[in-house]
Amino acid sequence: MKTPLLLINFKTYIEATGKKSIELAKIAEQVAREQGVNFAVAPQFSDLKPVSEAVDIPVFSQHIDPIRPGAYTGHVLAEAVRSAGAGGTLINHSERRIKISEIEETLEIARSAELATIVCANTSGVGAAVAALDPDMVAIEPPELIGSGVAVSKAQPELITRTVTRIRDVNKTVKILCGAGVSYADDVISALTLGTDGVLVASSVVKNKDPKKLLQEMAGAMLDHRGLRLSASASN
Amino acid sequence: MKTPLLLINFKTYIEATGKKSIELAKIAEQVAREQGVNFAVAPQFSDLKPVSEAVDIPVFSQHIDPIRPGAYTGHVLAEAVRSAGAGGTLINHSERRIKISEIEETLEIARSAELATIVCANTSGVGAAVAALDPDMVAIEPPELIGSGVAVSKAQPELITRTVTRIRDVNKTVKILCGAGVSYADDVISALTLGTDGVLVASSVVKNKDPKKLLQEMAGAMLDHRGLRLSASASN
Amino acid sequence: MKTPLLLINFKTYIEATGKKSIELAKIAEQVAREQGVNFAVAPQFSDLKPVSEAVDIPVFSQHIDPIRPGAYTGHVLAEAVRSAGAGGTLINHSERRIKISEIEETLEIARSAELATIVCANTSGVGAAVAALDPDMVAIEPPELIGSGVAVSKAQPELITRTVTRIRDVNKTVKILCGAGVSYADDVISALTLGTDGVLVASSVVKNKDPKKLLQEMAGAMLDHRGLRLSASASN
Amino acid sequence: MKTPLLLINFKTYIEATGKKSIELAKIAEQVAREQGVNFAVAPQFSDLKPVSEAVDIPVFSQHIDPIRPGAYTGHVLAEAVRSAGAGGTLINHSERRIKISEIEETLEIARSAELATIVCANTSGVGAAVAALDPDMVAIEPPELIGSGVAVSKAQPELITRTVTRIRDVNKTVKILCGAGVSYADDVISALTLGTDGVLVASSVVKNKDPKKLLQEMAGAMLDHRGLRLSASASN
Repeated sequence: MKTPLLLINFKTYIEATGKKSIELAKIAEQVAREQGVNFAVAPQFSDLKPVSEAVDIPVFSQHIDPIRPGAYTGHVLAEAVRSAGAGGTLINHSERRIKISEIEETLEIARSAELATIVCANTSGVGAAVAALDPDMVAIEPPELIGSGVAVSKAQPELITRTVTRIRDVNKTVKILCGAGVSYADDVISALTLGTDGVLVASSVVKNKDPKKLLQEMAGAMLDHRGLRLSASASN
Repeated sequence: MKTPLLLINFKTYIEATGKKSIELAKIAEQVAREQGVNFAVAPQFSDLKPVSEAVDIPVFSQHIDPIRPGAYTGHVLAEAVRSAGAGGTLINHSERRIKISEIEETLEIARSAELATIVCANTSGVGAAVAALDPDMVAIEPPELIGSGVAVSKAQPELITRTVTRIRDVNKTVKILCGAGVSYADDVISALTLGTDGVLVASSVVKNKDPKKLLQEMAGAMLDHRGLRLSASASN
Repeated sequence: MKTPLLLINFKTYIEATGKKSIELAKIAEQVAREQGVNFAVAPQFSDLKPVSEAVDIPVFSQHIDPIRPGAYTGHVLAEAVRSAGAGGTLINHSERRIKISEIEETLEIARSAELATIVCANTSGVGAAVAALDPDMVAIEPPELIGSGVAVSKAQPELITRTVTRIRDVNKTVKILCGAGVSYADDVISALTLGTDGVLVASSVVKNKDPKKLLQEMAGAMLDHRGLRLSASASN
Repeated sequence: MKTPLLLINFKTYIEATGKKSIELAKIAEQVAREQGVNFAVAPQFSDLKPVSEAVDIPVFSQHIDPIRPGAYTGHVLAEAVRSAGAGGTLINHSERRIKISEIEETLEIARSAELATIVCANTSGVGAAVAALDPDMVAIEPPELIGSGVAVSKAQPELITRTVTRIRDVNKTVKILCGAGVSYADDVISALTLGTDGVLVASSVVKNKDPKKLLQEMAGAMLDHRGLRLSASASN
């Protein structure tokens, strides 16, 4: 999974259900292609296949269950979302939390199904804990900021830096995403500048009247950040 | 939903995941059409849309969550499975049990999304309890018989008759299905003769080397039962 | 369990934890004895034994788990609360909801441990559903009124009468309690007049500066209601 | 909490419920006093107070809920078990697993109630993860060995050493206990020799016909291990 990454979580918003999930994914794909940045989308389970067939950017499941194929009516099988086109999955999102033993099992199952893994954490402590299980990425999302329009990178920059520090104490290589309240292009720059590898967005994009415009601005922020890093290293 | 009904629950069996879910659904559709009986299928969430597009028999979700559109990452939205082509849903399957208050909420949500509802129950008491909430159908599935190859209608015919009686005390009109261990055509006749409106099948069909043959036999049993009833009423 | 009954749920309020649970239970016992009414108390698990030893009114557990003796670390065993002096238990309180299959199992376990059972329900539908499982009592507690100071018997009298009607359709003999928002003596009369067999109270008593005075008034209301019924039947 | 520690988990065994919990706790106290070793007991919630009053060794709760005082019917409040005499609590036992975010909350709540904390883990990975949250102790208990009579320290010594190593990578100071299948005095020596700070025992003691004899042997093993360490350091 290339970084910096911007992942759009469609949740169960009606604005990103069924046909509308395909439309939004296509907008994301177009902006990512035009501006040369890494976008990914996480639609609902029943939209994974049509979205995967419609676009050529990474598609994530919002959750998988810690199960192997078998008699598990109503559960979400890694192989099923993989065969529907998902290339990765969120795990332990604050709206779908699981037990610590289940996170470890889910990571093993995801790896064997070749799904990239993003484990969500609500605090720096939980971030460090799940980093010990060695997922591909850890996403830090304080639930009190989710859907608030207040970006964690601005409201609590020290939470991000403390999280990065605590995670790095435990795991040197895991990628770190910043979620919750990422609403503007500025928030994207803040998050990247604080040392993260990308952002999770949801309502700010999904419920936006002009999601394309916001995604273009966020893509611009990702490019600006890249430019800043390049010029910083050039001037050294 | 027409009855008598035979519903095939695909569970999360690898034999009915992805492309194989479409193949099995097509077999079911073909047998149902050729023999003029009512079959339905319940594939995994991510297979709902391709299966619905491939066949013209009723498609059920295996579960939906008691949520309205919104911020519910990793949950299953009624509107999403409806838009993927599902015409109904299982609720409270013994492998995915929910709280009694959630069953009531899920029924309301399913109705407003125009999904037919089958609430599963593990005992006659639970069957009567959920019948009080007035779903379209109640399916009785003793978990100790699920996947056992021992049909509840044969192993415990008194459980079926007691369940029918207890449910009828509470609800005169709800349809009653019989699940768990339905493996042979004979089991289908037993279940219908005991006063139920159909059966749930799973492993016996999904993991069968020749599911078409078994479904043809079960369809034959449904026709035989219809014939028996017709001749019984003619001789009166 | 004698009715009409007033059950005081101590929840996990600090005002009714440890020594304070004993003090409150003693106040309840004194008022019940002086005025000749039926009061019961439901303290926390760890206070069951000291409270049971201190008072001579019925003591309820707030919950038990659907388990038999064995390897269930951290669970609540029927035999343990029974041996600590509990004579009954709440089941499925809206703050501790369980699955419908677990309600049935818990009822069987409670009966074999000789514990009286009060199953809580948040709606009239759920009330009817659990009544089908034949507990000793059903308590109706709309969660939106819990702790609100607005009594269900006054805010939604039709909810009580509808609940009584729906429960009676399913179960002629189960006792019916009315909970949520019972704050004043008037609420007790309302509840009894609407056809219930008693009330559940919690914060209005536990967090009251003068719980004795409120309990005396509520006991008075129970006596007034008895008097009304007696004079009504005398005049017939 | 002094180490090396032997903690006896009473679970919900009938052999350690009610009066029998006091008897067993007294036996443990007597052996601990006579042989000068550190024993602790973890009875059921409703037995915490009588056991705490009867003995002078540390008493643990088997679980607490991540709640503060308030409207949480049927939950286990830290302050309640503390006021009943508990000096510590198990958290996330494999028979009572909780979410990773709840483990962190529970740790904060336990600390503010001055309860020592032992977080259980089923694997070395989960052990490292919970160690990142800085509890007082981590107990490693592979569920497949619980109640098996096969000690993890003997069946899978490499699991213990790997766990110790992984935990030490994350947390230099947390104490480490070894649980699951500790049945004989030998198992205690194995566990301590592999670098742990003590053991959790359950069925081997609780269901033993002569628990005193077994506890005496285990205490002897703890003394032998101390002697081995002292003589080893003396010969250096």
